[in-house]
Amino acid sequence: MHAREMAEDFPVIGLDSDAWEAVTLLAEHRLPGLVVTEPPDGRPHSILPASQVVRMLVPSYVQDDPSLAGVLSESMADRVADKLRGKTVRSLVRDDRPELAVVNHDDTIVEVAAVMARLQCPLAAVLENEVLVGVITASRLLQVALGR
Amino acid sequence: MHAREMAEDFPVIGLDSDAWEAVTLLAEHRLPGLVVTEPPDGRPHSILPASQVVRMLVPSYVQDDPSLAGVLSESMADRVADKLRGKTVRSLVRDDRPELAVVNHDDTIVEVAAVMARLQCPLAAVLENEVLVGVITASRLLQVALGR
Repeated sequence: MHAREMAEDFPVIGLDSDAWEAVTLLAEHRLPGLVVTEPPDGRPHSILPASQVVRMLVPSYVQDDPSLAGVLSESMADRVADKLRGKTVRSLVRDDRPELAVVNHDDTIVEVAAVMARLQCPLAAVLENEVLVGVITASRLLQVALGR
Repeated sequence: MHAREMAEDFPVIGLDSDAWEAVTLLAEHRLPGLVVTEPPDGRPHSILPASQVVRMLVPSYVQDDPSLAGVLSESMADRVADKLRGKTVRSLVRDDRPELAVVNHDDTIVEVAAVMARLQCPLAAVLENEVLVGVITASRLLQVALGR
């Protein structure tokens, strides 16, 4: 079986899309992360993990002094919306982000596993003729390996 | 809302459980990872990410020379079963594993977010009286923050 057959649809978002859209996608579909694509041709750029976006919920004075977390009372949703107003996905992607695993459509299961294991990346973007055709998560790869 | 109310059930596995059981849990339920607990009292020990288990699919001579990946033909399921025979979850957990985020049942959303963001951990184990009562994923936290 080749990567193309293992690949599944996975929500992607553009680097210049609205940051609010990324956060609501993660929350509503309960996703561990999104694949971020780059204009103009939609090549995969990076992964935006939900655990990174969570940082936005923490005001900087709490990051400095965690004991202040208990005294907060305003609405979280309002605070998140305020923080994201006018921002793009680009502003959420960190410079020290993990490298995105990218594989070819005709790679075998061992080739995909080798890339994913080397980068410790929970998903691999599958490219065919430079176009993103789907994503393989680590658990999908285990499922294929076990023949389930 | 406190951590106890945000927490959800999440598959856990003991450090001394059969490694094969962990791999089939990840594959069949398509999980990004498992929470590993420690005997005798079941305290959370670590996270076992599916991306780490995937390493098992890659023979060491392919890790050394990726160009050999294409020549493999035996059944993957057989190979995984062979590798796991007689092994426990302990053997799959790496020494350089990421630190597991642990929060108290009465922590607020900002407190949970602060711990998760600091450790860049996609989930937090919730403890009440030293007992694991559930898990909060990063996307669940965003969902709660947005009031969805």
